[in-house]
Amino acid sequence: MSEDALRYHVDGDLVPASEATVSVEDRGFAYGDAAFETLRAYGGEVFRWEAHADRLADTCETLGLDHGLSDADLKVRVDETLAANDLADAYVKCSITRGVQPGTLNPQPEVDPTVVVIAKPLPRGGVDSETVHDGPAALQTTKTRKPSSRALPADAKTHNYLNGILARLELRITGADEALMLDPAGNVAEGATSNIFFADGTALKTPSLEGPVLPGVTRRTVIEIAEDEGIPVEAGTYAPDAVREADEVFLTNSTWEIRPVETVDGLAVDGDGDGVEGPLTTLISRLFDRRVEERYYDGEQL
Amino acid sequence: MSEDALRYHVDGDLVPASEATVSVEDRGFAYGDAAFETLRAYGGEVFRWEAHADRLADTCETLGLDHGLSDADLKVRVDETLAANDLADAYVKCSITRGVQPGTLNPQPEVDPTVVVIAKPLPRGGVDSETVHDGPAALQTTKTRKPSSRALPADAKTHNYLNGILARLELRITGADEALMLDPAGNVAEGATSNIFFADGTALKTPSLEGPVLPGVTRRTVIEIAEDEGIPVEAGTYAPDAVREADEVFLTNSTWEIRPVETVDGLAVDGDGDGVEGPLTTLISRLFDRRVEERYYDGEQL
Repeated sequence: MSEDALRYHVDGDLVPASEATVSVEDRGFAYGDAAFETLRAYGGEVFRWEAHADRLADTCETLGLDHGLSDADLKVRVDETLAANDLADAYVKCSITRGVQPGTLNPQPEVDPTVVVIAKPLPRGGVDSETVHDGPAALQTTKTRKPSSRALPADAKTHNYLNGILARLELRITGADEALMLDPAGNVAEGATSNIFFADGTALKTPSLEGPVLPGVTRRTVIEIAEDEGIPVEAGTYAPDAVREADEVFLTNSTWEIRPVETVDGLAVDGDGDGVEGPLTTLISRLFDRRVEERYYDGEQL
Repeated sequence: MSEDALRYHVDGDLVPASEATVSVEDRGFAYGDAAFETLRAYGGEVFRWEAHADRLADTCETLGLDHGLSDADLKVRVDETLAANDLADAYVKCSITRGVQPGTLNPQPEVDPTVVVIAKPLPRGGVDSETVHDGPAALQTTKTRKPSSRALPADAKTHNYLNGILARLELRITGADEALMLDPAGNVAEGATSNIFFADGTALKTPSLEGPVLPGVTRRTVIEIAEDEGIPVEAGTYAPDAVREADEVFLTNSTWEIRPVETVDGLAVDGDGDGVEGPLTTLISRLFDRRVEERYYDGEQL
């Protein structure tokens, strides 16, 4: 399907993508005053909808955005968007804004929300398919740091994405794929759009949610998989050198799933130089693919 | 003029406000990836256009947003919007987004920007007119702090306004008008949409731009006025107690101009309890009004 022919869900209606618009006075546009989730659909079904719906609700609570829509209402809009575009394997973005309100910055308690669902085809990934990322990532530490949670709560997924954009802009110089972003104290937080995992022979490690780290749904799935396999998992506070010196590093998000990291700050992660991702990354990736396969393509809900 | 009848400037065209929209894929909507300025028009002329245009250019440079439009191009759109709505005394917001781009978060160097100009009637303020704010402000320290400039540069005025929204949400409990926001170290930074000034008998003081403080155009104008009058001005680092214990406190922004503060964290600023703003606030306000009057209504450019 050509992207021009896509239809998006805006404020309750399916409309051609070219006519999918919001008012210039919508607070989502004016202030980035909106919550969103990026979702994956596999075989026509959204991956871990409940986890995404829960996080969306958490974000809206942080924003004081009482939109009055049920999770089921939102799911219907997502499903309608997938169906209208005849999409089985897809990228989906579901946004809720505080709509247009009188006055300027002060959010009003009475909300007529704007709900937008976008869907685009995405390779299925996983077993017997191409991956959805551009291959192993070059990770680069950026000067742009994550804001403290006292300034912007890291667990809220909102249309305020400038921090990540500034980090990605720094990558233009090196051509790296993803930013290694540090918290205000200089410890590892996350990527601009991904969570970071690394392994050093003792455990699979990832920055703790006590820092400014998004509680990624894929992050949680990876931790569950590792724990099910008896692999020690540690969520902690790590200096960037721990990642630079790790045996294996990978990134997670809903779109990329598990993306191996090839270099960190220009240094090869792959110690033996054979260009092959590490064994733990391979194992976790395969188990992730199998979980998706079993859950979404074999008709079984695990 | 009814607000329904307003016309806004969107992407080069004047359109009815109800039809003034942007794509849901515009990066201004998706990520708040946009620069803006709030301007005041007095007598049909924008106040200190050059200062606003310079800051807009600085914001775009921070965002790596090369929109290709000259200051003069932008000024034409602002002037056309004022003229189309027959507005002499007005609130104007001029935004430039990175437009719609392929891919997701990564900003592409090739930009087809979206330019939006909104204008609304606003009381003239100043000499012989009602003020544009709702009277003296109650200022309240918030738990939400300004982000470090390493996370989000304070001198960039963008559509990422969630930090200020979260601060304003906290005010719902106390009913205060503006947030007294602190920097990461706990020193006074600014309001959610205003700069802060206070006086303690030695000088007119305001947080230095070395902290996460927007270089407000009205802030700069107030400093110029005070210096012209021989009033000592100090830009420094101040603990919140300095503001709480000040003799006079006022806020500045383009819309409010100079807004006296009545209470800070529930404590009356007005030491003698006569309910009248302090003498320095009155003096600066009158000199500001006179400057506007002479510059924009007497046909003289000072």
